[in-house]
Amino acid sequence: MAEDRQTYEIDEAQESQYARAPLIDQEFLNDIMELVDTESQHALVNIFTDLHPADIAQVINNLPHRGGKYLFELLPIEVASETILELSEGVRENLVDELSSQRISDIVDELESDDAVDIVSELDDDVAQQVLRQLSPEDSAELIELMSYDEESAGGLMGTEFPIVSIDKTVEDAIRSVRDTAEDTEDIYEVLVVDENGALSGIVDLKSLLLHRPDVPIKDILEDDAVSVDVYLDQEEVAHLMRKYDMLTVPVVDGLNRPVGIITFDDIADVLHDEAIEDMERMSGLSDHEEVQSTVFGIAKSRFPWLLVGFAGEILAAIVLWSFSASIERVIISTFFIPIIMAMGGNCGIQSSSIVVRGLATGEIAFTKTFVRLSKEFLSALISGTALALLLFGISAFWFQDYQFGLVVSLALLVVMTNATLVGSTVPLILNKFGVDPAIATGPFITTTNDALGLFIYLAFLTLIYL
Amino acid sequence: MAEDRQTYEIDEAQESQYARAPLIDQEFLNDIMELVDTESQHALVNIFTDLHPADIAQVINNLPHRGGKYLFELLPIEVASETILELSEGVRENLVDELSSQRISDIVDELESDDAVDIVSELDDDVAQQVLRQLSPEDSAELIELMSYDEESAGGLMGTEFPIVSIDKTVEDAIRSVRDTAEDTEDIYEVLVVDENGALSGIVDLKSLLLHRPDVPIKDILEDDAVSVDVYLDQEEVAHLMRKYDMLTVPVVDGLNRPVGIITFDDIADVLHDEAIEDMERMSGLSDHEEVQSTVFGIAKSRFPWLLVGFAGEILAAIVLWSFSASIERVIISTFFIPIIMAMGGNCGIQSSSIVVRGLATGEIAFTKTFVRLSKEFLSALISGTALALLLFGISAFWFQDYQFGLVVSLALLVVMTNATLVGSTVPLILNKFGVDPAIATGPFITTTNDALGLFIYLAFLTLIYL
Repeated sequence: MAEDRQTYEIDEAQESQYARAPLIDQEFLNDIMELVDTESQHALVNIFTDLHPADIAQVINNLPHRGGKYLFELLPIEVASETILELSEGVRENLVDELSSQRISDIVDELESDDAVDIVSELDDDVAQQVLRQLSPEDSAELIELMSYDEESAGGLMGTEFPIVSIDKTVEDAIRSVRDTAEDTEDIYEVLVVDENGALSGIVDLKSLLLHRPDVPIKDILEDDAVSVDVYLDQEEVAHLMRKYDMLTVPVVDGLNRPVGIITFDDIADVLHDEAIEDMERMSGLSDHEEVQSTVFGIAKSRFPWLLVGFAGEILAAIVLWSFSASIERVIISTFFIPIIMAMGGNCGIQSSSIVVRGLATGEIAFTKTFVRLSKEFLSALISGTALALLLFGISAFWFQDYQFGLVVSLALLVVMTNATLVGSTVPLILNKFGVDPAIATGPFITTTNDALGLFIYLAFLTLIYL
Repeated sequence: MAEDRQTYEIDEAQESQYARAPLIDQEFLNDIMELVDTESQHALVNIFTDLHPADIAQVINNLPHRGGKYLFELLPIEVASETILELSEGVRENLVDELSSQRISDIVDELESDDAVDIVSELDDDVAQQVLRQLSPEDSAELIELMSYDEESAGGLMGTEFPIVSIDKTVEDAIRSVRDTAEDTEDIYEVLVVDENGALSGIVDLKSLLLHRPDVPIKDILEDDAVSVDVYLDQEEVAHLMRKYDMLTVPVVDGLNRPVGIITFDDIADVLHDEAIEDMERMSGLSDHEEVQSTVFGIAKSRFPWLLVGFAGEILAAIVLWSFSASIERVIISTFFIPIIMAMGGNCGIQSSSIVVRGLATGEIAFTKTFVRLSKEFLSALISGTALALLLFGISAFWFQDYQFGLVVSLALLVVMTNATLVGSTVPLILNKFGVDPAIATGPFITTTNDALGLFIYLAFLTLIYL
C-alpha cells in the first residue's frame, strides 16, 4: 500500500526532479506517441491509471494535438473531468472543439460548479446551449446563474456546494448537512451557519463538529467573527484578503448577506500565480498572454504593440537629437555618451516605478505622503547619481583630456538620473489618480519616456555650454 | 451577533476600499498617535480589541517606531503573538530588539512551531539562547530541531502539530488524536496515518472521520495516494506541487518516510507572493529587497549594484561608438538613430528572455527542443523586425531624402532586433545549463548587453557602406 504513495524528494543528481514522481520528459512523450501511433490502447490505459490528473494534463499539453486527443478520449469520465481542468487554455480549447456535446455534458456533470462554469463559458454559444440542455434542469439553472458573474469576481471563483445549517440547530444537524454535501464535492472544511433570515451568522469548522457531542447547539460553537466576501468582489481583492487573514476558505455572500458560495485556497493560488505572471508580462512589454507553446504569429502579435510604442518614442528621441545636431557636430565625443545617458535614465525610472507600482498594489503606499515618497526617491537618486557622475567625470576627463566636457556629461548624468527617478515614481501615482492601471508604467512606456527626456536634458546642457 | 462579522464588499464610491472593514488611513494613524502621545491606554485597548491581528500589524507597520512599540506592549499576549507574525520584517526586528526576553518567550510559547521558529531565528544569538531557556525543555528541543532546517525548505515551513494515528486503529482513535492536537493548534484538516514502522501510509480527512462510525477501521477509509514532500525539498518546489495538485495541506516526511510535519496553504501563499516580488525586483534591477518603508540609504543600496553594472556596460557602448567615430562624423544623421537601435534591441531582448526564464521556472521549456524555441523566437523577431524596418525606412528616407542611409538604418534595425531576440532567449538557457539562476537575464544585464552589441552591429553596417 505504501508503494502507491508519491513522495517528492530531492534527487542528489538532479535537484529539480522528483525521485519517485513520474518523470515526464521528451523521451517519455516519444514513447507515448509511439503507443498512440500503434493504437496500443491497453498499454496507454495502464500507464495513465496511476497518474495524477495534473500529470496526465502535463503530458497532453506537450503531445502533438492528435496524440493528446487520442489519449484524452481513452480516459474514464471521472479522470477526464479532472484532467481537462489542468490543461493549458490553448490545448483545452482545441481539444474541446472536437469533443461531442454529449461527452462535454458528461464531463461537466462530473465537475464541481465552479469548475463546470469555467469549462462551459469557454464553449461556443451553440455548443454551450447543447451541453446545458443535456444536464439536469437544476444543474443547468445553477450553471447559468454562476455564468452571470464576472469571471474575475468572487462569484466567478466560488463553488456552490457547501454545507449549511441554521443557528438554532445542533452539531448533529450540521453533520447531516456535511453528509449531504459530500455527495457533490470532496472538499469540505467548514459548515456555514445562517440566522432566521438566511443571513450568514458565522461558521463552524469540521474539527469543532468532530470534538463536540451531537446534541450541542450550533450557537455554542459558532465562530461569529469569520470574514466573508461579497459575490462581486474582484478576485485579486479576494486573494489579498485570504492571504492577509491566512484563510483556507472564505464564504461568499450576496447583497442581503446570504451565503451563495465558498472559495477555497486552491482557486486563489491560481489567481496569485496568474497575477504574478501578468505583472511580469507587463514589465517585459508583452501585451497578450504568451505561452511557451504559442505559435510564431502568436508570439509576434503579443510582442508587437509595445515594440511599436517604443518605436514611436525613439523616433521622438531622434527628433530631439536632430534638433540639437549643431551641438552634436561641434562636440562629436558627446555622441559616445548617448547610450549611458539613455540607459541610466531608463534603469532609474524602472527601479522607482516598480517600487511605487508594487506599493500601490499592496496598499502600503497609501500611508506615505506623496511628498515623503518623492523626497526619498529624489535623495536616493542624488546619492547614486553623484557617485556615478564622479566616476563618469573621471573616465571622460581621463579619456579625452577634456575637463569641460567631462563636467557637462557628468552633470547631465546626475540630472537625468534624478529626473528619471522622479518621473518613474510620479507617473504611476498620476495614472493611479486618474483610474489608469499604474502597472503600465513599469514597462517600456517609462523607459521610452525617459529616453527622450534624458537626451533632451543632456543636449540642452551641451548646447548651453558650447553654443 | 451578525454585526460582529466583517464582510468585504465593493463600495460604489471607492472600489478599492471595503465598506465595513477598518479603514486604516493616514487620518486613523494620526488619531492613534495622538492617543499614544496622551498615553490613553484605555481608548487604545478598546480600539484594538475588535481588530484582526493582521490589521493591528498593518497599523503598527505604519506608525512611527515609538507609537508602534507603545501599542504592541499594550496587546494581550495572545494578540501580540498573532500580530508579531504579520509585521513587516524591518518593523518586527526593530520591535523585538526592545522586548524583554521574558516577553519574547511568552510570545513564542503561544505560537505554533513553524511560526515560533521564524521569530526565534531572527533573534540575536544570545537573546535566542535566553528565550529558549525560558521555554519548556520539550518546546525548546523542538524549536532547536526545526531551526536546523533551511528556512527555505519544507522543514523550515512545516508545523509539527498534527494528529497521527496507526493504520490498525479506528476512527475513534483518530478523533482522540485530533482532540489532543487541538490543544496546540487551530488548524486541523486531516489525520496522518502511519504503518507499524512509523512510515506514512496515507491520510484521512476530517470529513471522513465525521461521516464514519467510531468503530470503522482506519485502513478502510485511508486515502493512500496522498502526495507528501521530503523535509529538505525547496519551498518553491513545495509551492509548485501544492498548486499543481490543488492541495490545501501536505505532509512532510523524513528520509525513512516518517511524518515530521505538515504544511498548510497559508504558508505557501506567502512563498508564492514572495517569489512574485522577487521576480519583479530582479526584472527591475533591484538587488536587495526594498520595502516602501526603506530609508533613503536602504533604497540607494538596493538599487546601486545594477546601476553600476549598467554603467559599466554603457561605458563599453561608448567605446564602441568611439571606435567608429570616423563613420559617425561622416554620417552625422546616424547619431539620431542610436536611441532607436538601442531601445528596440533592449525591448526584444527583455521580451524573449522573460518568456524563456518563466518557461524554465515552470518547467514547460524542458519539453521544447532548444532549436524549436530559437527558431520560433527568430521567426517572430523577423516578422516584427521587418514591419518596423519598413516603417523606419519610410520615415528616414522621407525625413532626410537619403535612401542609402534609410536602407542602412532599417536593415541594421532588423538585424539588431533578431539578434537581441536570440541573445535574450539563449543567455537564460546557457546560464541555466551552468547552474546560474537564469532570472538574472531578465533585468538590466540583458538590456546592457544588447545595447553594446546592437550599436556595434549598426555602426559596422554604416562603416561597410560609407567607408
